[in-house]
Order: sequence, then structure tokens, then C-alpha cells
Amino acid sequence: MTLTDGSRPGGGVVAADHVSLRRNNLSVVLRHVRSDGPKSRARIAADTGLNKATVSSLVAELVERGLLRDGRAESERGALGRPGQLVELDGSAVCGVGAEINVDYLAVTALDLSGDTVIERRVPLDVAHLAPGTTLDHLAELVQHAVTAVTARGGQTAGVTLAAPGLVQGTTGSLKLAPNLGWGELQIVDEMRERLGGPAYAVRVDNEANLAALAAYSELRKESGSNVEDIVLLTGAIGVGGGMVAGGHLLRGGRGFSGEVGHMPVAPAGGICGCGRTGCWETVVGLTALLNKATDADDPVRDPSLDVEQRLAEITRRAEAGGARTLRALADVGTWLGIGGAILVNILNPDVLVLGGYFAVLGPWLKEPLESAIRDRVIAPDGGGCRVVQSELGFTAAVRGGAQISLDQVFLDPTLIGRDATGVAQ
Amino acid sequence: MTLTDGSRPGGGVVAADHVSLRRNNLSVVLRHVRSDGPKSRARIAADTGLNKATVSSLVAELVERGLLRDGRAESERGALGRPGQLVELDGSAVCGVGAEINVDYLAVTALDLSGDTVIERRVPLDVAHLAPGTTLDHLAELVQHAVTAVTARGGQTAGVTLAAPGLVQGTTGSLKLAPNLGWGELQIVDEMRERLGGPAYAVRVDNEANLAALAAYSELRKESGSNVEDIVLLTGAIGVGGGMVAGGHLLRGGRGFSGEVGHMPVAPAGGICGCGRTGCWETVVGLTALLNKATDADDPVRDPSLDVEQRLAEITRRAEAGGARTLRALADVGTWLGIGGAILVNILNPDVLVLGGYFAVLGPWLKEPLESAIRDRVIAPDGGGCRVVQSELGFTAAVRGGAQISLDQVFLDPTLIGRDATGVAQ
Repeated sequence: MTLTDGSRPGGGVVAADHVSLRRNNLSVVLRHVRSDGPKSRARIAADTGLNKATVSSLVAELVERGLLRDGRAESERGALGRPGQLVELDGSAVCGVGAEINVDYLAVTALDLSGDTVIERRVPLDVAHLAPGTTLDHLAELVQHAVTAVTARGGQTAGVTLAAPGLVQGTTGSLKLAPNLGWGELQIVDEMRERLGGPAYAVRVDNEANLAALAAYSELRKESGSNVEDIVLLTGAIGVGGGMVAGGHLLRGGRGFSGEVGHMPVAPAGGICGCGRTGCWETVVGLTALLNKATDADDPVRDPSLDVEQRLAEITRRAEAGGARTLRALADVGTWLGIGGAILVNILNPDVLVLGGYFAVLGPWLKEPLESAIRDRVIAPDGGGCRVVQSELGFTAAVRGGAQISLDQVFLDPTLIGRDATGVAQ
Repeated sequence: MTLTDGSRPGGGVVAADHVSLRRNNLSVVLRHVRSDGPKSRARIAADTGLNKATVSSLVAELVERGLLRDGRAESERGALGRPGQLVELDGSAVCGVGAEINVDYLAVTALDLSGDTVIERRVPLDVAHLAPGTTLDHLAELVQHAVTAVTARGGQTAGVTLAAPGLVQGTTGSLKLAPNLGWGELQIVDEMRERLGGPAYAVRVDNEANLAALAAYSELRKESGSNVEDIVLLTGAIGVGGGMVAGGHLLRGGRGFSGEVGHMPVAPAGGICGCGRTGCWETVVGLTALLNKATDADDPVRDPSLDVEQRLAEITRRAEAGGARTLRALADVGTWLGIGGAILVNILNPDVLVLGGYFAVLGPWLKEPLESAIRDRVIAPDGGGCRVVQSELGFTAAVRGGAQISLDQVFLDPTLIGRDATGVAQ
């Protein structure tokens, strides 16, 4: 149940009835334990404003559904002088899965309800040179492997979210366009459901930068708390994408096509982009631009069949060794990163600009020119308070975000998980 | 009460207690009547899922507070065969006021609860050449005039929202920087409250483009219904600002400094901006850029002491008469408008890009190059579905948005208005 606020005149109207109130309160208790950690029933009642009998009944139901469990006894005595039993998230019962298709790899991860990683896999694959169907066969195998691992530890899969580097329409489960994969329109959710044997869990698709932004946002909230509500994440390697969280909400745009920052026309004299246009931002800040500047055509670091992390490790080695050509190329990419970065910060005023994907790996050389452009080119004093940070999630950000979205559905509506905790109620 | 949704992991947790539930349900009923028009109690119950006895009690309280009133009888017989009495918004009791400071004018408007205009005033003023205190004296007079007009018709003022063309921090009621006014930091809310004699109603400040975007969003929702949730509004004359609504929420950024689109560095070879930097978007799309291209230095249309609408009417006259220099200048500004517009559409994927301020007046000449750039430079098919429309609110958009924000507080919490409807409960 989401009610409108002052910023949303004319928004939807939702009144509370008893069923939705119960579901809402289950969600409130479950999310409270997630965000604040193990708690006694009395403390949950005090924090949420619900009365103690209601909280006891809600906790009992969440335990039945396998989402909460009784943990250790409270270490400090409460106001009543009796140590209470703490309830905590039950990590084991329910997992979310994220699965990513990218230009040169596939990846999968499963996270349990407490956010712990159950399984994580990444395999290099030259996706742009395979038929989409073949790639999806490989991806389905990876997903099935993750689901099996979840089942093997006695858990159930709440949902699978696919991350794709392109224009995605989540409502219809379709990929509209992924220029760097060379893919056109594809009913990707249907294709995957079929390959997975029509599973009971939900399958969704989202843009990889959106999912990476959600994962980064989640990490930042753990570190910085609720004073971070607005972030922009830049990710990619060959292609460059942006994911944005504003006022705590993921920005998707009217049709779900927001965040196409790689195609901002910032370099009129730039090269031809994968999208067919000239001067897109990714032609001056993408991995190809860096490699073209830093290396000769026959340099093995350009080989797309090598794992991208190995190739970036080699660039890093050269930069650390003071290779003049590499450093010049990084400085040039950093300057262009600053020009586009300042545009994003002027428009969105994020608390944090997160460097993800390949930008995170080369952050030590890119960050300074980016920060300098933000100081110089952003009109708000002190860059509007924007910090630049390197993501520590590496290339796992999108799959982690995908797994989180699958789990979020359970946090929003705990009744999705059956009371016997053996099957997903659809 | 705003609950988090799936896009907001780790967001706030709010549980319903009886007082907040009652307040929430009062708000639900009041907003439902606003968005759907006059309704019988039975219909409100059916639409909201609340039971009829509860709805009757809620409506009675809203009538007591002067927010709803009984209207005509239902024209069609309901399911029970009895025509019901319709309840409707009581426009007369409560008004919101918006007041704007801009480079060359001040404006004020008061809207009643049904959105009807009670009073509207705009006065040319060369603000950039006056001391801030003198301008605020003039603005306070205008606001007092509006409040008096509201009182004279038996209403009360729920709040006053100031619109300023610059960086605004709503939480502290301060203006940080308004380059085109030549104003630095100013405790503008305190200054105005003092000039207004410490009024009982709330005084707020917001960015003028944000408020104009809210007003435009509200108009679009009236026309297009709920399929519009994402808009970008461009406004301004000398300075250029952007206001953005995404997923139904106004974007403010981490510190409230979002929407500084006028300072996107898109024209490296451009002129010096009011902010001191080179190549900002407003140096190639603002009114000054147009006038420099279209007119000689001694052309009377450049005179800032004339009303901006008169000056734009003269430009329009010349364009309609086929003046080659005017048309060339408009085409040039339109092309630059498209370059920045495509950046905004790639990033935000709005349903609608609204031309406000001076862009709305000259829209007939600017729209085509802008639409063409969106088709050509936006990677999502069909420009991501983005329509370009000219605002019909003219230079009243920001004050209307300000009045609406003041009223929105009442829609969100009807208990702000006292039960005797004679005083604002603070």
C-alpha cells in the first residue's frame, strides 16, 4: 500500500481495509526487523506504534511463514525488568535470484532473506556473437543451478529477476532493444519461463543499471543510513548505463527507458556509437574509447573473449607502472566522465555518484577529474553536496539488485510465502 | 503516511495506529472527491473499500472542517433504488497562496480548494537592480493583498508558498543562490514571515521550476489521467530552469538543488553565463541568446523594464510576419533546445516534455526542431513515447504550483483545518 505524498497531487487513493491492514502490518514488522536488526516483540511494538498483542500475533504468523525466527535472548533488561526473546530474520527459508546477460558475460546470484549470498557465478561469454536463444539456454542453466542450490539448503526461490543491458519493459516482460548485444525486441520473460519449465516463482526483467543502482543504494543505506536518498550510478564497460534513485525511489521513466546516459550527445566531434549515432557519451567514456586511446589495435588486452576483469587488471597494472599512454588515456576518459557527470549532477543533485562496472575498477584514475568537474561545473555550492564513491560490488551489482527486487516482493507482502513455508503462494 | 514500495528498499517503516488511520482515511475521502468529483457517500464507500458508516462519519467531519459540503442529489438511482445526496469540495473555506519572485516581475495567486482562482496579480519589477529587502517589501504587499481577498470572501489562507528562481532549501526556508537576481544566501521565509506580521498560516519556499512542474503535472493529469506520471518542464526567460516529476513524485535531489538544466555544459564554444561559467545551456537557449541573435543592441525589444509578455508578443509578431533574422534566431535556439532536450529525455524518459515560460510563448517555432532532436537523438524507439506540449499556464505556472502545494498539505492532513473552520490549526 503506497499512499501519495505532497509531491504527488492527484495520485492514487488507497484506503485501508482489514485484510490489507493486516498484510501491511506484517510487512511493517518484517521490514522493521530487516532494517533495524533483531528485536524483542515489546521493542517492535514501541517502535511501530502497534500494540503488543497485535505484534505477537504478527510475529507468530511471520514465523509460521518461515520469514522470522526466535533468536537469542535480549542482552539488556527491558523496562519491565524481564529480558525479552529477540526475533530475527530467518535467512534460510526464502531466496531471491538475480541473473544478468551482458556483452561478454553471464552472471547469477541467489541471496537469502537476510541478504547473505547463497551462490554466485559469472561465466565469460561472447554474447554479441551468439544467437539470443543460445545465450538464453546458457542463462537458464545458470538460473536452474542457483535454484537447485537454494532448494538443496531447504529454501525456496521467491523469484528470479533478469538484468539486461538495454531498453526493458518490465510490465510486459520484454526487452525492446539492446544495441551492444545486437538484440532487438524479445519476449525475454516468456522465453526464460519456458526454458525453466514454467516455474512457480515469478520471473521479471529489468535494466541492469537500474538493478545495479538498487544494489548500490542498499549498500549506501547500510553505511550512511537514511541521509542518502538520491544516488546516480554509472555502470558499464562497452556500453554505459545509468541507474538513478531519487527520493528513495528508483527512476524508471514513463515507459521504463530512463537512464540512457550513454547516449547523451555530449561529444559532437566524437565517434560512431553502437546505436548508430555520433557523439554519444559512451563513445568517449566507454571501455572501447579507453582501449583505442591506450593501446594498439593488436594489443591482447583488446580481446573480447578474455574476461573483462582480467583485461581491466592489465590496464590497472600499466597505470600503476606509470605507463604514459595508459595514464593519458585515463585522464582523457576522466575529463569526459566529468563533463557528462556534471550534467547528471546539475539535473539530479544526487547525494552520491557511484562509479560501478568498469568505472569502479579504474576509479583511482577517473575519480579526480570527475570530482574536479563536479566542483567546477555544478552550479550548486560544493557540487550540491555530491560525493563520488567507487562501488565495491564490482560486476555483481546488477545480479544482487535483481535478487533484492525478488526479495522485496516478499517484504512488501509476506503473505506471498505460504504458511507452511514450503511453496510460493502466487 | 507514505509507505515504501519495491523501489525503496530500506526505506522508512510506518505502521497504522488509530489516530493516524483516521487522519489517513479523512485524507483518502477528501482526495477521492477532489480527483473524481462529486460523489454519494455510498459511492465513496464502494470506491475506497471503507464501510458506509465510517464514510458517513468521515464526511461529517470534513463538512465540519469546511472542506466538503452537501451538493445536489444524485441524478441516477443507486443500486438500492434511492437517489443519494452528492458531497463535493467546498471551495469557499480554504485557499492556498503562491507568490513568485522572478528577474523582471513579481506575481501572486490564490486558489481555493477546488482549484479555482480567487485572485491573480503580476507586476513588472526590475528585481535584479533592487535590494533584496525592497523586492521582498513589494512581494509582502502582494501576498497581503491576496490574503485579504481570501478573508474578504469568508475563506482562510492555508499557507503561502514562495517561488524563487534559484537554489532553494525548503527545509530551512532559505534561498542559497539566485544568479540571475544577483542574490546570495537569504533566510527568505523568515524575512517574509516578519513582513507579513508573523502570520498563523505556514510560509514555505520552493524553486520556481519545481512549482511550475507541479502545476503543469496537475493540468496534464486533468487532461490525460493517470497515464502521465513522468514529466519534464522547461521554464524561464533569461535563466532556464527545469522541473521534473518522476513516477508521480517531484524530483528535488539530495539537497533540493535538482533541475539546474540551464547550467548543463552543452556548448563548449558558447558565451559567458550569469553563473560565471562558459557554455551553459541557458547561454544558447535563454531569452538573451535569442535577442542577441534576432535583434540589434538598441532594439527596444531588449528593454528589460518592459513587461516580458509584451516583448515576446513583439518577437512573435516579427516571426509571424516572416522576419528572416527572427526566424533564423528561433531556428538556432530550437536546435540547441533539441540538443539539451534530448539529453533530458535520454536520462529521464518523460511521458511529456512541457515548454513553459518563454519557451511556451515561442513554442510554435521551437517545437519542431525540439521534436526532431528527440526523434533523432533519443535511443528509445519513438523518443521513448515523449510528447512535447506547450504549457497554457503562461507565467502563472509557478504561483499556481505554489498555491497547490499549500493546499496539498490540507488534502494530506485535513485536521490542519480547525473543526469550526475559522482558524488554521498549526
